[in-house]
Amino acid sequence: MILFFSNTVANGLIRLDEDESRHCLKVLRLGIGDIIHVTDGKGYLYDAEISGTSSGCVSAAILATHTNGFSKGFRLHIAIAPTKNSDRFEWFLEKSAEIGIDEITPLFCTRSERNRVNDDRLKRILVSAVKQSLKTRLPLLNAAVSLKDFLKENLAGERFIATCISGKEEEIQKVYTKAHDAVVLIGPEGDFTTEEIADAVKAGYLPVSLGESRLRTETAGVYVTAAMNLINKM
Amino acid sequence: MILFFSNTVANGLIRLDEDESRHCLKVLRLGIGDIIHVTDGKGYLYDAEISGTSSGCVSAAILATHTNGFSKGFRLHIAIAPTKNSDRFEWFLEKSAEIGIDEITPLFCTRSERNRVNDDRLKRILVSAVKQSLKTRLPLLNAAVSLKDFLKENLAGERFIATCISGKEEEIQKVYTKAHDAVVLIGPEGDFTTEEIADAVKAGYLPVSLGESRLRTETAGVYVTAAMNLINKM
Repeated sequence: MILFFSNTVANGLIRLDEDESRHCLKVLRLGIGDIIHVTDGKGYLYDAEISGTSSGCVSAAILATHTNGFSKGFRLHIAIAPTKNSDRFEWFLEKSAEIGIDEITPLFCTRSERNRVNDDRLKRILVSAVKQSLKTRLPLLNAAVSLKDFLKENLAGERFIATCISGKEEEIQKVYTKAHDAVVLIGPEGDFTTEEIADAVKAGYLPVSLGESRLRTETAGVYVTAAMNLINKM
Repeated sequence: MILFFSNTVANGLIRLDEDESRHCLKVLRLGIGDIIHVTDGKGYLYDAEISGTSSGCVSAAILATHTNGFSKGFRLHIAIAPTKNSDRFEWFLEKSAEIGIDEITPLFCTRSERNRVNDDRLKRILVSAVKQSLKTRLPLLNAAVSLKDFLKENLAGERFIATCISGKEEEIQKVYTKAHDAVVLIGPEGDFTTEEIADAVKAGYLPVSLGESRLRTETAGVYVTAAMNLINKM
């Protein structure tokens, strides 16, 4: 199945943007009367019939509406330092979106080696991963913030900060409660500083380990995503 | 901690190869008398003192031997189709080695879009991931084989083939028994064929799902690695 993405759904009609329309018309050579499957990234999946292709943009009439993906039973929000090498951060986005994540915040920390991200590019990667993995929920990508500002937000759910600074942290699967929402902080290449961890603890974040391996930032992000999804299915 | 890799350990002496020696001498500017940490990739970690640097190659005298990493409690062998885009396959190797895998076999299947791999390059990626994640066991990288030949090997452990072909497969965490060795087959971009799955079932492989998401080949590999490690720690 090929899944299209659209955030223009109204009055029983779906409109695909230029990129999606090009893929539909030029690559797949679909046309008026063909049936396509579209998600709005908000939990809905539509079966729709192409009804128009004016100015190279596809319009399609909704035939059926499905609501897959409403009941994962928990929300996962990862706030993570963008890696120096942007490919690595993009891998994290793609893989976590494929496996299942709800919200991502790029986090600037004391030891961050990069303090800019390209929001448009990151959003495109998320859309592509959602389509690839046949999901109907597009993860929310927040604007990048400093750890300091992030800690001021009073976020719902269990709060964890991944670190191996003391070597005595409990592993995340021992302390996370299944079916609870979770916010997990993942630091830059050089880890969080002792002061950052102390600030996070004050803000209600529990230091946790991700196991004996020293994982790269992006691996830690994908590991946490896999772990939380798996724990909630066991 | 910086971890070096060497497969030349004998009579209380370690020898680093050219690449590792260059990193040690030129990048880190270490020299005679400095202490380094070295793994042989077979489960041993050595503290050693640099005792010679002839022809640009480091020799070091072993001061202490540790045996970290001997007791993970299970072995994981993933046989996986190399992806069309070799970056994606290399990403799988790096991430699974960081998280924890014992053996990898590149697998050529009916729908494989690539049927060559660069063994030397893949081995270098594994060594680098092992060093990065401070592991002392280098995953075994087998020569690539066809699925047909692989199925003839009578491998120990629980056997699974990841597929979403019927839509009725049990998820892997429901059928895998903790603390048992496991062999998991992961197919190419277009999945295994019905015939390949039937052959695998005959050879004792149980079809399993990796959840509701349709994962790319390399994501499936990393997800299985994370899942098996996590299940064995719960």
